[in-house]
Amino acid sequence: MAQQDPQNGASEATLPAVSFAALKPHLFVEAPKANVAVAFYKNVFGAEEVSRTLNPKRKADQEIPHVLSAELKIAGSLFLVADTVDDSATPVKSGGNGVVFALETDDVEGAIAKAVKGGAVVDIEGASGEGRVGKVTDPYGYVWQISAPLKKDAEVVA
Amino acid sequence: MAQQDPQNGASEATLPAVSFAALKPHLFVEAPKANVAVAFYKNVFGAEEVSRTLNPKRKADQEIPHVLSAELKIAGSLFLVADTVDDSATPVKSGGNGVVFALETDDVEGAIAKAVKGGAVVDIEGASGEGRVGKVTDPYGYVWQISAPLKKDAEVVA
Repeated sequence: MAQQDPQNGASEATLPAVSFAALKPHLFVEAPKANVAVAFYKNVFGAEEVSRTLNPKRKADQEIPHVLSAELKIAGSLFLVADTVDDSATPVKSGGNGVVFALETDDVEGAIAKAVKGGAVVDIEGASGEGRVGKVTDPYGYVWQISAPLKKDAEVVA
Repeated sequence: MAQQDPQNGASEATLPAVSFAALKPHLFVEAPKANVAVAFYKNVFGAEEVSRTLNPKRKADQEIPHVLSAELKIAGSLFLVADTVDDSATPVKSGGNGVVFALETDDVEGAIAKAVKGGAVVDIEGASGEGRVGKVTDPYGYVWQISAPLKKDAEVVA
């Protein structure tokens, strides 16, 4: 249902398709906490660190160089963690209605326990049709829903 | 650098590791806009729809059944789009400092043009060391940074 462009009648659907090589959520954390946030995601969610780029400019005047971008991987999915620096044009608050990071595991309780031990706070914990489910907010304000792998029974209706 | 637990000296790192089958960002959109949001991500970013679960409860009293969860894929990465319903326990605003969804493509200008045609607003557009880069906010409040694929020169220092 592409929106029609009043000026020249072209809609985004008629513009040439663009292909993307990657989609990575980029989590901004109040500087200089990205370093500790990366350690949290590695210790608590077993994230694997793929690469890390430090901010060269900052090294001189403070011990912990700010993290420009640390690339992490959980279950084959890449995400980035970075320090928010005041002079960066990064939006401090995304306007969206809220992003929740859904993690699927067969050990929901173990994952929640580990998150809490690492400093996360449990928002909700209970059971759904698909088994145990919990939602935690990590020390950097990001919300993670931990549930059993979703069954693939929904059909595509669009 | 696992945080020590004062009570029993255990830290999250010593708890048994938990493995995850998937990590999917879950984008909540003000109901009933998830339907149109899914069309936007398909038309503008070429997302592929993998599955869709509708809210059975809602079908009776309004035309557009709310989307409980639409699973989409861009560049092999899965993400979910869902209607936020008042009675759901979904946090309307995630507390994090802001999530930006990083899209990597060789056609940054084409991608930005398509996003704007679809109703997104350009926040920033320019060039960085790695080529053209732009940041757009989509009609649902989510921020997408569109840039050329990042070169892999950063070393892991942790």
